[in-house]
Amino acid sequence: MAEVKLFGNWGSPFSRRVEVALKLKGVEYEFIDEDVYNYKSPLLLKYNPVHKKVPVLVHNGKPICESLVILEYVDETWEKGPSLLPKDPYERALVRFWTKFLDEKCVPTLWKTCWSIGEEQEKAKEESTELLNILEGTLSDKKFFGGDSIGMVDIVANFISYWFIILQELAGLQVLTKEKFPKLGAWIDDYLNCNIIKENLPPKDKLTAYFRARFEAAAAATAK
Amino acid sequence: MAEVKLFGNWGSPFSRRVEVALKLKGVEYEFIDEDVYNYKSPLLLKYNPVHKKVPVLVHNGKPICESLVILEYVDETWEKGPSLLPKDPYERALVRFWTKFLDEKCVPTLWKTCWSIGEEQEKAKEESTELLNILEGTLSDKKFFGGDSIGMVDIVANFISYWFIILQELAGLQVLTKEKFPKLGAWIDDYLNCNIIKENLPPKDKLTAYFRARFEAAAAATAK
Repeated sequence: MAEVKLFGNWGSPFSRRVEVALKLKGVEYEFIDEDVYNYKSPLLLKYNPVHKKVPVLVHNGKPICESLVILEYVDETWEKGPSLLPKDPYERALVRFWTKFLDEKCVPTLWKTCWSIGEEQEKAKEESTELLNILEGTLSDKKFFGGDSIGMVDIVANFISYWFIILQELAGLQVLTKEKFPKLGAWIDDYLNCNIIKENLPPKDKLTAYFRARFEAAAAATAK
Repeated sequence: MAEVKLFGNWGSPFSRRVEVALKLKGVEYEFIDEDVYNYKSPLLLKYNPVHKKVPVLVHNGKPICESLVILEYVDETWEKGPSLLPKDPYERALVRFWTKFLDEKCVPTLWKTCWSIGEEQEKAKEESTELLNILEGTLSDKKFFGGDSIGMVDIVANFISYWFIILQELAGLQVLTKEKFPKLGAWIDDYLNCNIIKENLPPKDKLTAYFRARFEAAAAATAK
């Protein structure tokens, strides 16, 4: 039997993407929870010497790094279960375009919106709104970014559906609301309602407590 | 016959990647040279409304944006000609890892090294050296990043082989030399010596003159 290990972190949206993909495919795996903020294990450093980050999927002893790369690997390696990417080359290109857009534009900008202050935060808020408007437009009349069922874009947009919602509340922001973004709001409901997603979210209390502690530490550092 | 158009720019390494891929595959295409620094055509804005950048490949009226996404599309759509990516899922994951590394780490850091000054430049030089050391290590005893023949990683590393060499000379730097990086040096020679690459480089004089003018403008702005 193939040996599959995932070096991840319970609270990382990047790590959770891989867990969702493996669960969707019905692949059994061993999860190694790396406390990456405090300590990087020798195995993690061995398997991801370039970025020294989770997630790392180790399949039969061979490491694969970077969540987007891992998702494509999972789709190509385990053909059973639902496909994460469509078969048509043009449709695949669109999926790759949007996952790149989410990782390179949306995630860093939304993150910055919650962790910055003053003028920098105002700018990040404006940029976030523009980016979310683009995403709202791509949903059009589809239930999921992938169409009728969850695909790679939905899995990669996980940060927006859950992590960002918790973060913006802690930061006292209302950047993404159902009023402003009705289609994204409906998508979040539908996405979080899928059993496989619901069962693979970090516990809300634990994640909130974790981020609240980081917010307090950041505020204390700023006040110094 | 399929209609293939490439909205590109003669001097852009990202645009040249796509040209090389199409030439390797033997795909006929019409090239539309966009003078992106001065003007963005209505067609470019229509085809790439999100990033408003070249390259955009338009195949039978459908646009594909982002050079890495286009390269995968080209490989999946035109199966004739050499493969840009290997067939094995693990080998494909490695290609995707390294192309991501080149675009997210190497290109911006090497670029910054040439366009920054003082302390910022020193830091970028150090980082560039670290990144180039990683690439040097991956070449090991291979002729190309793709093994015996050119693959997607080589095509994506084009910036290093040609643009960066011109830029570092203009900036009076010696970050990447054959003495410091013998394997990368040999790779550059072998890569630039392939007919299909050689014939698809921007003319050296023209590119040098273009960058020299930008260096002079940057220096004038700093002196103000």
